[in-house]
Amino acid sequence: MADKILDIDVAKLDLSRPDRTGQPESVFAQGKTPEQLLAILKAFQKRKCAVLATRCSKEQVDYLKKHRLKDFVYHEQARVLTLGKNRDYPHCHTVAICTGGTADIPVAEEAAVTAEFFGANVTRHYDIGVAGIHRLFASLPKIREARAVIAVAGMEGALASVLAGLVSVPVIAVPTSVGYGASFQGLTPLLSMLNSCAEGVSVVNIDNGFGAASLVCRMFRTFPALY
Amino acid sequence: MADKILDIDVAKLDLSRPDRTGQPESVFAQGKTPEQLLAILKAFQKRKCAVLATRCSKEQVDYLKKHRLKDFVYHEQARVLTLGKNRDYPHCHTVAICTGGTADIPVAEEAAVTAEFFGANVTRHYDIGVAGIHRLFASLPKIREARAVIAVAGMEGALASVLAGLVSVPVIAVPTSVGYGASFQGLTPLLSMLNSCAEGVSVVNIDNGFGAASLVCRMFRTFPALY
Amino acid sequence: MADKILDIDVAKLDLSRPDRTGQPESVFAQGKTPEQLLAILKAFQKRKCAVLATRCSKEQVDYLKKHRLKDFVYHEQARVLTLGKNRDYPHCHTVAICTGGTADIPVAEEAAVTAEFFGANVTRHYDIGVAGIHRLFASLPKIREARAVIAVAGMEGALASVLAGLVSVPVIAVPTSVGYGASFQGLTPLLSMLNSCAEGVSVVNIDNGFGAASLVCRMFRTFPALY
Amino acid sequence: MADKILDIDVAKLDLSRPDRTGQPESVFAQGKTPEQLLAILKAFQKRKCAVLATRCSKEQVDYLKKHRLKDFVYHEQARVLTLGKNRDYPHCHTVAICTGGTADIPVAEEAAVTAEFFGANVTRHYDIGVAGIHRLFASLPKIREARAVIAVAGMEGALASVLAGLVSVPVIAVPTSVGYGASFQGLTPLLSMLNSCAEGVSVVNIDNGFGAASLVCRMFRTFPALY
Amino acid sequence: MADKILDIDVAKLDLSRPDRTGQPESVFAQGKTPEQLLAILKAFQKRKCAVLATRCSKEQVDYLKKHRLKDFVYHEQARVLTLGKNRDYPHCHTVAICTGGTADIPVAEEAAVTAEFFGANVTRHYDIGVAGIHRLFASLPKIREARAVIAVAGMEGALASVLAGLVSVPVIAVPTSVGYGASFQGLTPLLSMLNSCAEGVSVVNIDNGFGAASLVCRMFRTFPALY
Amino acid sequence: MADKILDIDVAKLDLSRPDRTGQPESVFAQGKTPEQLLAILKAFQKRKCAVLATRCSKEQVDYLKKHRLKDFVYHEQARVLTLGKNRDYPHCHTVAICTGGTADIPVAEEAAVTAEFFGANVTRHYDIGVAGIHRLFASLPKIREARAVIAVAGMEGALASVLAGLVSVPVIAVPTSVGYGASFQGLTPLLSMLNSCAEGVSVVNIDNGFGAASLVCRMFRTFPALY
Amino acid sequence: MADKILDIDVAKLDLSRPDRTGQPESVFAQGKTPEQLLAILKAFQKRKCAVLATRCSKEQVDYLKKHRLKDFVYHEQARVLTLGKNRDYPHCHTVAICTGGTADIPVAEEAAVTAEFFGANVTRHYDIGVAGIHRLFASLPKIREARAVIAVAGMEGALASVLAGLVSVPVIAVPTSVGYGASFQGLTPLLSMLNSCAEGVSVVNIDNGFGAASLVCRMFRTFPALY
Amino acid sequence: MADKILDIDVAKLDLSRPDRTGQPESVFAQGKTPEQLLAILKAFQKRKCAVLATRCSKEQVDYLKKHRLKDFVYHEQARVLTLGKNRDYPHCHTVAICTGGTADIPVAEEAAVTAEFFGANVTRHYDIGVAGIHRLFASLPKIREARAVIAVAGMEGALASVLAGLVSVPVIAVPTSVGYGASFQGLTPLLSMLNSCAEGVSVVNIDNGFGAASLVCRMFRTFPALY
Repeated sequence: MADKILDIDVAKLDLSRPDRTGQPESVFAQGKTPEQLLAILKAFQKRKCAVLATRCSKEQVDYLKKHRLKDFVYHEQARVLTLGKNRDYPHCHTVAICTGGTADIPVAEEAAVTAEFFGANVTRHYDIGVAGIHRLFASLPKIREARAVIAVAGMEGALASVLAGLVSVPVIAVPTSVGYGASFQGLTPLLSMLNSCAEGVSVVNIDNGFGAASLVCRMFRTFPALY
Repeated sequence: MADKILDIDVAKLDLSRPDRTGQPESVFAQGKTPEQLLAILKAFQKRKCAVLATRCSKEQVDYLKKHRLKDFVYHEQARVLTLGKNRDYPHCHTVAICTGGTADIPVAEEAAVTAEFFGANVTRHYDIGVAGIHRLFASLPKIREARAVIAVAGMEGALASVLAGLVSVPVIAVPTSVGYGASFQGLTPLLSMLNSCAEGVSVVNIDNGFGAASLVCRMFRTFPALY
Repeated sequence: MADKILDIDVAKLDLSRPDRTGQPESVFAQGKTPEQLLAILKAFQKRKCAVLATRCSKEQVDYLKKHRLKDFVYHEQARVLTLGKNRDYPHCHTVAICTGGTADIPVAEEAAVTAEFFGANVTRHYDIGVAGIHRLFASLPKIREARAVIAVAGMEGALASVLAGLVSVPVIAVPTSVGYGASFQGLTPLLSMLNSCAEGVSVVNIDNGFGAASLVCRMFRTFPALY
Repeated sequence: MADKILDIDVAKLDLSRPDRTGQPESVFAQGKTPEQLLAILKAFQKRKCAVLATRCSKEQVDYLKKHRLKDFVYHEQARVLTLGKNRDYPHCHTVAICTGGTADIPVAEEAAVTAEFFGANVTRHYDIGVAGIHRLFASLPKIREARAVIAVAGMEGALASVLAGLVSVPVIAVPTSVGYGASFQGLTPLLSMLNSCAEGVSVVNIDNGFGAASLVCRMFRTFPALY
Repeated sequence: MADKILDIDVAKLDLSRPDRTGQPESVFAQGKTPEQLLAILKAFQKRKCAVLATRCSKEQVDYLKKHRLKDFVYHEQARVLTLGKNRDYPHCHTVAICTGGTADIPVAEEAAVTAEFFGANVTRHYDIGVAGIHRLFASLPKIREARAVIAVAGMEGALASVLAGLVSVPVIAVPTSVGYGASFQGLTPLLSMLNSCAEGVSVVNIDNGFGAASLVCRMFRTFPALY
Repeated sequence: MADKILDIDVAKLDLSRPDRTGQPESVFAQGKTPEQLLAILKAFQKRKCAVLATRCSKEQVDYLKKHRLKDFVYHEQARVLTLGKNRDYPHCHTVAICTGGTADIPVAEEAAVTAEFFGANVTRHYDIGVAGIHRLFASLPKIREARAVIAVAGMEGALASVLAGLVSVPVIAVPTSVGYGASFQGLTPLLSMLNSCAEGVSVVNIDNGFGAASLVCRMFRTFPALY
Repeated sequence: MADKILDIDVAKLDLSRPDRTGQPESVFAQGKTPEQLLAILKAFQKRKCAVLATRCSKEQVDYLKKHRLKDFVYHEQARVLTLGKNRDYPHCHTVAICTGGTADIPVAEEAAVTAEFFGANVTRHYDIGVAGIHRLFASLPKIREARAVIAVAGMEGALASVLAGLVSVPVIAVPTSVGYGASFQGLTPLLSMLNSCAEGVSVVNIDNGFGAASLVCRMFRTFPALY
Repeated sequence: MADKILDIDVAKLDLSRPDRTGQPESVFAQGKTPEQLLAILKAFQKRKCAVLATRCSKEQVDYLKKHRLKDFVYHEQARVLTLGKNRDYPHCHTVAICTGGTADIPVAEEAAVTAEFFGANVTRHYDIGVAGIHRLFASLPKIREARAVIAVAGMEGALASVLAGLVSVPVIAVPTSVGYGASFQGLTPLLSMLNSCAEGVSVVNIDNGFGAASLVCRMFRTFPALY
């Protein structure tokens, strides 16, 4: 095990990951102090590693700007920060990212920004929840062109089941904490998606758009477009 | 309050309910000893009150037979027993009872037998779950003829949301304990149905086919066909 | 499926719904940015569709005012915004909206404003919880004149059961997050109402006054006053 | 601390409790082997201590009979066994034990047998649940004669709140596991009773008729009838 | 039912309660707007009814002061407001109020202020939790002089069980939301107290000091000191 | 929508699915009566559709044998029944199925039998849980040859996280109900796997080996070996 | 990593563990078929490794006897099977194993048999729950002689907190599923013990006597008596 | 019981604890007012007792400074305050404190500061979570030098299981509330750690670094280095 670990006191950075897995590094910014985040990002930058940070707050980004971190882009709605440019990927499959409603868009954008940074093509299909199923049918031809579907939904999360019954590619379901009352911060769509009556669905954590995109990109790298 | 109460020791029977509410009496058989159930049914029979008993076990029914209770019908799949003949009802609206899968049928039948005994017309639409949504669309024209829909589903319970988006009448959702793993004995479809993204849905207890039918018949009596 | 869908990027608006279901559109404002809400409302207004938005925060409304949205009314206690005038409805049944306590009033008002906008008549019966059951009895004659009852209660939610035993029309129960300690943000009255020992009750999500009113109005449209 | 403890290997029996607290000993039989139960009961009998055992199964009682334990009475519905005769108590206040339904009777009987063995008078008021509140009103005058009320109910457990609003003495609420679906083995009435909107209610464990009676008898001994 | 109900729009006030139950009125201030609270308190004051309001925030009290409500006392730690003077009570039994720790004191004070306003004597025994059981033993002689014990504790809530084994009077347990991690806002001591291995304990809602005091005072009025 | 639906009363069979999705039909046998299962299987057999039934009990299989259903194989440990021969699949990627312990094998076998019937190659790596991580490392070279990994584990479910950190292909995690105490029938590994600190993991329902295999085979069909 | 792994198909046995950790192997029998258990035990026996199996059912043991497995002892109350003789341990510290009640004894015995097999001395202190705290004090001098305490309790689990306040050595708490109602199969004492107000307590899984003993023996091996 | 208790009204301070247990006093600052905290700390200081306070907020510390409390050190990241100097301890074993990620460091520091104040040596091993298991292996030789391991982790908490399989000393697991979605404020790693498939793990409350250190120091005092 000769993996390179860079120990910067508050974190042990895994510099050989891109070589080992083909995927750039990512950092979960939530719960880190602005100082810690800056130190981590600078360490990557110094070694010319591209990196993506999720759950970045406005406060963290302001701190980074104030301390003159360069070459980063902040995707506000997605709360994702990307630093540097990812290496080129020849395997450009497409993933269709769908949401039940408007309020699910931030989570969908976390998935979309991540997937694009990791080298995938993305099509967006927002606000096509099952309460008005004709909206979903209108988008279906386009969705069916993708090699994977990410279904982002809160409330009762039925979008995943309905989509999985209508496409033949893998469906990754992302429950969101959108809803109120007995939604219990996303527990309801989480359970609902896990119990999908349709085949071909698997589930990631509540609001975890990053996780869904990450899995889809693993799949795309496993089966690259030109092999 | 001059309501007639018949006190038979283990229960206080409400004999004036049919006059007061227009609905025959019902008994929840589960948790009662066979002796108690027999005593209660005989008391109604003696006073020529029609009565419906839900959640009757095979053991209870065998006991009733052995003790020569007469004039009752046992609906095995629904686990419902009906005793005597209900008075005639002029208000014969129709309710469409739908299930997601085959395993939901016993709960749907509890609803169907109850609704018929209480004077409603019933159409049955079983195994039309959203995983194969074309099955649901095939049944839709017939479902749309009804004045109320009862949606019975386990697993993720998405049937209620999808139906409510496709019909314009009230949808009463019945979560079932059908499923496994993180279905948690029906908690998942219960929460899912309560969080339906579609308007026009309300929910009754897990596996409570009786409750859904009872509510629908209240509605039908409130708005009788010939008033 | 020739339903008209207006795609305004962040949302897909269902313009044919009023024709299809007889009910004006509604928007769930919570979780939407002020910009998104304004865009959605303007799109409806431009097409002369009346629309109702629930869970509008003061901040959202201030933004709308600042950007000169016109012809809307904000019902502060209910946190409901109505835009435009709904078409006339000939079916003016009455729904009685009852609360257990004073703190349940905002949820009840969400139901009341919704029902009125959708064309129903509303009578209000607030603070008649079962701890002092004579208060409930004093209001009962008036409640019994309605064709449906909405029972709004927090704490132990017993109001729904007691009312359902005293009226013969459908009772739609709305648990509220009013209470403390083991109320668990409304879980307790939710479970309590689902387990009502009285017939004729169904339940909507916690604090979902809109949902209850919406179901009642479906029922009123299904059985219009003059058919 | 000179309390007498009799160590019989599988249990340490507290022989001085009756002197210390004025209340005979009690044993929780559930989870004990028949051999352990027999050994415990014989140890009390040998020392002429009256004792009450709750949650005795038919199998345990058969074993006791087979091994010729004498002088005990088995209250089958209550699943309570009493051994020996309790000392005389001059404080004969009365407790009213009420149930919502027929299926709650076994728990109520556990309370009743316990209270009687501990020296209280008991009046029974069964099947007076709030779904038909006139049944409760019919029993009210008699209930109001008691110095304490035990309210035993499953389903939504509303009986406790309604009773507490109608009497002026302490109400001890016992949730039962009677119900189905989202009753969750008594969790629903437990939460409901804890959140009672009425004053003067406290709650014991699910199905714990013994606990309620035990508390009431503490109260009666604290305030004896003739002091 | 000739009870006097004063309907002030946002609330229906029960003016005959003191006559009916011997206990002054109380108001749950949480969730009420300052305007509603002022209206309610003034209505009582005008009719010379003493009243106690629990869960009053600093903001509510400031509003009352600003609008010149007179004759009230605000007990800050307890967050209880008392208005007017309660009638004299001849039944002055004593209740011992105990806490496990310092952080439980606000809940204990809610109980203490309530009990005193309702006419009981109170002794306070704070910070005697079971981790250092000698502190509890030091306070025991004094605690044993009371006719009832209120045990207020968070964390694991063991105080109730240990006290109930050491005194012979009723123990009312109040779980508090004091703690962290897997305390789950008081769920742990709530469950713990409900499962007490000691007899003679009953439980009220989390942080509900008022409820415990209210029950104890019911008991004291049921068995007055001079009858 | 010209999909062929065969309505056999208790079920609506989707005969065009293999053509539409490339995957043979499957049936969830649990909760179906033996009569229903036989009717469904015969309907498929008559139309020469291969079919796989999961969660078949011994009783169901005995009934099928007694009624002379032919050409089926029962995989006892997996509780899976396969009927007929699936069409040939040219896309023979390999999936590595791993378990934490011996008791997880039935769930793993459900996945393995399903994957093989649906046309995938399977390698089995059982009892390589993280408590003895050298066992996992010993199997790693072989696991790394696969194009997807299914990680089946109960207890704390750490296997999924550790594996996902060591391979670069998608990891589908299956929590099992193996464990005791605070495993809560698989809730613990379910939550654990959803919160995996490693990227590239998604999760299916508790004990749902079928679901994991089904998703993997969707992926394999989406990226066939010879395209 | 040269650890010896014996792959017997259904399990991968870790033969070098005793050398690596100083502790004999153990097997969790629950969920294994009798055939699997026999195969595993024989594999150890053949290599002269002592082994301990927990959660062995009567059926498993009967099967082992029938197939003539030799040299094993079955501790029925503990449901533990020991095979062969453990190597000698020079580090014979003592652990005090305490229970709240009689019904906790099986779990305590699982701990006791395990600790003895792993080389520790054990003293047993059963039925010393806090409801009668003088029983605990009577046993305290003896408990204080031990170098570690295992506190086994169900219901509210207060034993752990009280003991930890009275001894100065580490206390390992084992919640048991003994109790009823809101004990929720041991969840209540689990939470209670995790929230102990006393220092020096840590907790293992519900009913996990083995886990507690195993941890204590790790500690004893870390600090052997004669170093 | 001649333990010295200092009653300062809001708390009863246990001054003889250091003599009795060998451990300095500690105070849980959360939930105490600044005034109460100051009074408690001054009381200890006056009697020359060293004391440690956990969960101190910045506000509390500012208040202490403003009121000129002297001789204290505030460990900001750990939120721990130490006052005075602990007595010398001759038993200086070493504990290894490990975290899964960077965001777990505050909890780990609470453990580290506590352990050091109580007399132990501490080595820190932060950000060695199992997603990149080579990081853990790189730290392993150093970790293996310690006599106890504290494993601090959020998300799925797998660190505890993996570590326990790799070291032979006791592992105390501390779940943290780090994570999101279905982490449920630390419930997931709590359950995960309780269900560890590895032997030799016990668990303390969520985020309870103090509790883990306290237990380890009890162990170190029980087995001092020089006895």
